[in-house]
Amino acid sequence: MSDVHAARRERLRDRCAASGAAAALVSRPANVRYLTGCAPAGAVLLIGPGDQDALVRSRPAVGDLSEAQPPEDVRTVVLARSDGDPVVAAAGLVLDRRGDTLAVEEHHLTVSRHRAIGSVAPGLRLTDLRGAVEQLRVVKDEQEIASIRIAAELADQALGELLESILVGRTERHLALELERRLVDHGADGPAFPTCVGTGPHSGAARHVPTDRRVEEGDFLTVRLGACYRGYRCEVGRTFVVGTSPADWQIELYELVFAAQRAGREALAPGVACRDVDHAARSVLAAAGYGEALGEVTGHGVGLEIDEDPRLSPAAMGKLDACVPVTVEPGVHLPGRGGVRIDDTLVVRPPTDGGPELLTITTKELLAL
Amino acid sequence: MSDVHAARRERLRDRCAASGAAAALVSRPANVRYLTGCAPAGAVLLIGPGDQDALVRSRPAVGDLSEAQPPEDVRTVVLARSDGDPVVAAAGLVLDRRGDTLAVEEHHLTVSRHRAIGSVAPGLRLTDLRGAVEQLRVVKDEQEIASIRIAAELADQALGELLESILVGRTERHLALELERRLVDHGADGPAFPTCVGTGPHSGAARHVPTDRRVEEGDFLTVRLGACYRGYRCEVGRTFVVGTSPADWQIELYELVFAAQRAGREALAPGVACRDVDHAARSVLAAAGYGEALGEVTGHGVGLEIDEDPRLSPAAMGKLDACVPVTVEPGVHLPGRGGVRIDDTLVVRPPTDGGPELLTITTKELLAL
Repeated sequence: MSDVHAARRERLRDRCAASGAAAALVSRPANVRYLTGCAPAGAVLLIGPGDQDALVRSRPAVGDLSEAQPPEDVRTVVLARSDGDPVVAAAGLVLDRRGDTLAVEEHHLTVSRHRAIGSVAPGLRLTDLRGAVEQLRVVKDEQEIASIRIAAELADQALGELLESILVGRTERHLALELERRLVDHGADGPAFPTCVGTGPHSGAARHVPTDRRVEEGDFLTVRLGACYRGYRCEVGRTFVVGTSPADWQIELYELVFAAQRAGREALAPGVACRDVDHAARSVLAAAGYGEALGEVTGHGVGLEIDEDPRLSPAAMGKLDACVPVTVEPGVHLPGRGGVRIDDTLVVRPPTDGGPELLTITTKELLAL
Repeated sequence: MSDVHAARRERLRDRCAASGAAAALVSRPANVRYLTGCAPAGAVLLIGPGDQDALVRSRPAVGDLSEAQPPEDVRTVVLARSDGDPVVAAAGLVLDRRGDTLAVEEHHLTVSRHRAIGSVAPGLRLTDLRGAVEQLRVVKDEQEIASIRIAAELADQALGELLESILVGRTERHLALELERRLVDHGADGPAFPTCVGTGPHSGAARHVPTDRRVEEGDFLTVRLGACYRGYRCEVGRTFVVGTSPADWQIELYELVFAAQRAGREALAPGVACRDVDHAARSVLAAAGYGEALGEVTGHGVGLEIDEDPRLSPAAMGKLDACVPVTVEPGVHLPGRGGVRIDDTLVVRPPTDGGPELLTITTKELLAL
């Protein structure tokens, strides 16, 4: 694995060199992890100058048993005190190595820390690394996809087990906790994001914090969960009807959202504009008069973070590549009544490879539980 | 409650005026919550210029059911697009109101967002608000303390129930999840921080991510958890012996850490230097030869965040005030063998009020479970 990380750091080094920076300071934790395989709390990664990369970190607490080790070709620099600032120490290293330009992640670094570099290393010219690492992260290798695939299996498994249990009378909060426990029981690092369970009038909402509302007969029940496995995250969301057979409005709304979600999934292919995928799903709902009830995105990338590039929205720029995992998750929420949301994680694949690879395989039939 | 928030904002307004800033932009979520009672994701709070404060936020997702409402005397400004930047919009408001100086939280704001303010509002002079809100947050009012007290009751309750169940053979991860489920079942918003369960060689560690190691007879078992209630957090940690009666080394180590923790607790009083509280606990362990096995802090403040000012450490400046909730949590971890950690949340009170108020009342006897 450390070859993989070395190759990623090499690509970043090339980008830096092209932009004239002798060194880059990576502070965003998911980016540090992408480039080293580990991200101790507060650690930053210094790429160059020279070949020797360095992970700079505070002194761990005594008896700190939460550490992953960085690759052997990354030198670890541990500060003498736990309240030292790794960013400042890394800037000092750049000067020691006679670097004169350092690219930093201005979208992550605070003004105070940026200023602190300026005062300890006034000779250093600071530039903006921008989202260079985030861009490298968009297309995943097969090992990354394998981790997301396992995360998806764990989420499907937890969801499947829940569906076999009695749901009526249980609260949203309780169901959400039960799902998270099952994820971890099956081997997930933890939930990929806070599990969302919405019943009745809460169903179909884009964001909802589970409440003490209990599941009732006739409710729509929307569940959205994800597992994190070896740092990689997935998302799956389904809407069910509880108890009795569904009402006509429930069947109609479900079929509509299902059609929109299928259109979005089927639009996924390398070279397709992100906004066109969004349009495929969105136009189905808009034609039925639900354009306003839809959020600003109908999907997004997933990986080391749950919400990554690309975004599937009307304003999105750029095209999809092969090996990009994304969610497709349109939904309709009718205030006071509830609604439907269907959410899958898929990997963009060319038609010659069979088209988009569906990772979350829980059925999308409308189940009456 | 909104009177409370208005009074807090008034104190901050006074501090700003004293430092020459016409307006302050608060972006750190816990600070926004402290001053308004709510903190929608990404929302920022503009204090002044003038009397009208404003909560500036992105457009919520359609069907977003996770919203707390700000007080009526705070105007809510909702951006037209969900990807707009509330920080930039707030800076525009300051210019509209003819303010010329804006204090920002440089320890929280990113360089990119700081720069974005500079480009949309080049006439605006930006200064540093520093930790002004964090300083206001150190001394709690009785309503805040009441929330922490309830959080402590919930944590004690979850821990007490766990102790009544069979522990041998269960994994650290499973026990941690069970505790978190119980916290929420009893009414917590959620855990205050990731629950830590360490068995055998993992016991007593300052930081430990629960593993699949199973509890065995004769183990030390260290549990550390906290509840979050109405946004306020607490911490409780205990170490037990599993199954058989404890070994001599276990009894000796436990009594030593217990003595250190008691010395720390008993040192808490208004006007006492934070470093003296640390010294009271630390010197007991150092005298027994465990000075090196101890971390850099022996306690810290708690409130809307789990790790707040003040810090109890040898380098800490400043003195304790009445009505400051802190943890006292010395521990010893012996690599390969395990150790002991005992952690309470207390409120600093003057001797005339009966001295420090212990919020986490789970017994500190060495229990053999």
